[in-house]
Amino acid sequence: MKILFKNADILHRGPEGYTVLKNGFLATDGALIAFIGESRPRGVFDREIDCSGKLALPGLYNCHTHAAMVALRGAGSDLPLNRWLRDVIFQREKNIRAETVLAASRLAIAEMLACGTVSFTDMYFFPEETARAVEESGVKANLTKHLQMTDEGSRARQIRESVEFFRSYHGAADGRIRVDFGVHAWYTCDFDTVSEYTALCAQSGARMHIHLSETDGEMNDCLARCGKTPVQWFRDAGAFRSPVTATHCVALTPEDIRILTENRVGVVHCPTSNMKLGSGPANVPELLRNGIKIALGTDGAASNNNLNLFEEMHLAALLHKGIFKDPTLLPTRTVLDMATVNGAAMQGREKCGALCEGYRADLVLLDMNRPHLIPNDDAAALLVYSAQGGDVCLTMADGKILFENGEYKTLDIERVMREAAAVRLF
Amino acid sequence: MKILFKNADILHRGPEGYTVLKNGFLATDGALIAFIGESRPRGVFDREIDCSGKLALPGLYNCHTHAAMVALRGAGSDLPLNRWLRDVIFQREKNIRAETVLAASRLAIAEMLACGTVSFTDMYFFPEETARAVEESGVKANLTKHLQMTDEGSRARQIRESVEFFRSYHGAADGRIRVDFGVHAWYTCDFDTVSEYTALCAQSGARMHIHLSETDGEMNDCLARCGKTPVQWFRDAGAFRSPVTATHCVALTPEDIRILTENRVGVVHCPTSNMKLGSGPANVPELLRNGIKIALGTDGAASNNNLNLFEEMHLAALLHKGIFKDPTLLPTRTVLDMATVNGAAMQGREKCGALCEGYRADLVLLDMNRPHLIPNDDAAALLVYSAQGGDVCLTMADGKILFENGEYKTLDIERVMREAAAVRLF
Repeated sequence: MKILFKNADILHRGPEGYTVLKNGFLATDGALIAFIGESRPRGVFDREIDCSGKLALPGLYNCHTHAAMVALRGAGSDLPLNRWLRDVIFQREKNIRAETVLAASRLAIAEMLACGTVSFTDMYFFPEETARAVEESGVKANLTKHLQMTDEGSRARQIRESVEFFRSYHGAADGRIRVDFGVHAWYTCDFDTVSEYTALCAQSGARMHIHLSETDGEMNDCLARCGKTPVQWFRDAGAFRSPVTATHCVALTPEDIRILTENRVGVVHCPTSNMKLGSGPANVPELLRNGIKIALGTDGAASNNNLNLFEEMHLAALLHKGIFKDPTLLPTRTVLDMATVNGAAMQGREKCGALCEGYRADLVLLDMNRPHLIPNDDAAALLVYSAQGGDVCLTMADGKILFENGEYKTLDIERVMREAAAVRLF
Repeated sequence: MKILFKNADILHRGPEGYTVLKNGFLATDGALIAFIGESRPRGVFDREIDCSGKLALPGLYNCHTHAAMVALRGAGSDLPLNRWLRDVIFQREKNIRAETVLAASRLAIAEMLACGTVSFTDMYFFPEETARAVEESGVKANLTKHLQMTDEGSRARQIRESVEFFRSYHGAADGRIRVDFGVHAWYTCDFDTVSEYTALCAQSGARMHIHLSETDGEMNDCLARCGKTPVQWFRDAGAFRSPVTATHCVALTPEDIRILTENRVGVVHCPTSNMKLGSGPANVPELLRNGIKIALGTDGAASNNNLNLFEEMHLAALLHKGIFKDPTLLPTRTVLDMATVNGAAMQGREKCGALCEGYRADLVLLDMNRPHLIPNDDAAALLVYSAQGGDVCLTMADGKILFENGEYKTLDIERVMREAAAVRLF
């Protein structure tokens, strides 16, 4: 299918930052962007979309979530972290079954598409069900069947199932599904098992997705129990031989930062979750100064409580300016990179995350004809500071329109919402 | 006019926090809420609105903004504070005229109505124009013709004009407009003039609206130049004899907090603006522990960059949990109070800010039938953590519907947006 977006303001990522091609033309051919320019390209199109008053931007990447946790949205808000986890989340997760994950994954995908997310990196139970929801919806995802120990006997089985999941699903759905190796955290896995697993990851050429140093408590526990930091633990277990997506990285020593830098570990910043759970903010300015690549994640909806990347961009841009009392930190360009090209890189997806000829046709249209987006002198600043997820009027992945003007093209949204609302985990 | 909202989930503020009356009925009679209950009230209604799948909540209060600064939305993003103020904002404000303020105030009101704000507290130039926009739109506002010295000769004139504005506009538009006395800040006014002015404020029984201790720099300058803190400066100038709305309060000494508490000064927390400008966060948990009443404000759109109270609720709820590493701080109830009843109190508006029989019919309907608001087990948590301003589908003030399903009842929105977009301040 060939689609022509005409009269669109097109967000362009250049060496000097983000600029806008005014009243431009963007044409797709199959899954790719075939043309971007100031005048109409030659050729015949299956569909032409007038984009007057709309901004075309690259689709957003949510690089850390537990999509199906939308079933636990709002559960135990405002409780202390240990009570929230122990008394609410873990209790309810005992009741999670495959059907729950399927229904909740569909709801999560619907929510993400409606606010411009084209791809997400997930870590949760029953990933085969999330894969099914990804396949049928047209969204993209990096999934994992991760290690998270519940008993001694499950170690060998977990490694075997994780590798099998990689073999079965990596590259599925025309490449929309990619599979990472995953380790929940050092404190839910044992060192020898993880060491064995990281060797298999390196052999497979896969990426590794982990939770890393989310809280001061985690850091202190690791020092007390293992005599090393969580970063050192994962390094010593061989995790950093593969490209790594490390989520949170709130509690880090200077030595940890050096290790992350040297090993080119990518960090996923989840500002809402870190603040809501009282973990505190990751020191993103310091990570950036060290050249560490940063992407954004919502984390699960239980600790957010939504999957809206516009809010993560917004919070990331505001948070560090205020905490470090420096309004020049995390300018719009940096934040947009985190939500787009850096996210694509951290999923191992090539030619994704920007609007360029030859890149994947993953794009979002934003309705700029709204009171809160006037005047429109600096579209990048409007995206980061003024826009809402609800301003998205079209989301396309791999050249297919998945969401347009409130309607879903691949999901029966009434059924998705009804089935997800019926999930009861308590 | 009598309107019946039927089958609505109605947010109720009780002694134990916010709860929801499921599938309830709410009837208005003129400007007031006449009935709230589980079954249909007697009587005939001019209009009945089916609210299945919708949540009725009290209208939101934006207790500090400079509405017409939407004309400067996004200007100078990510610059250091002094360059932003001196090179961008002050330069462009030189070009502001009455017509600019009228066009921009209309746009600001359109934006606020679309995200559930029924009343705002303003401080800006040409307040007569903002009053006109308030009058014609149906929104409510506390306005001021504030003191902000540009030259010695203007002192007497400014006081005279401010008092005249109070006499002419206080209570206008059927009481929707209230007028405060206003002082921009200690550093833009002289002590003797403010002392004279505060006496007139106390005589008039008006409220006082001030910027107070926004940054460490302001605190240090005041100590160096005046030998006292900004809080002490305003106390000594007699400002606290009147009820005061003090915005920001980022840099406070323990003695300052004692003075604010003793004088029952109300504080407006503007978390987005404080973070974006690098001022740092106000210590809201400490103010709350001292029993100080807190409301929320967006500040002007130039330092935000929007007028969306949902984002301020969201950020206020997240920020302090993260900074103090305590997820029990600022629970949903506290944050909802800040955006509603506390805001109404800080505007001197009685029987406003909650859905109760006999209160003003200022209400908002939120469409809960959206993927990011499922499951709906804790409506208060959904409002604070999951909802967007764009989920608002109806905004009513004093019993009149001003915004419904994307349409404005009192504003020609296409014209408002066109005229505001045409404003050029550079």
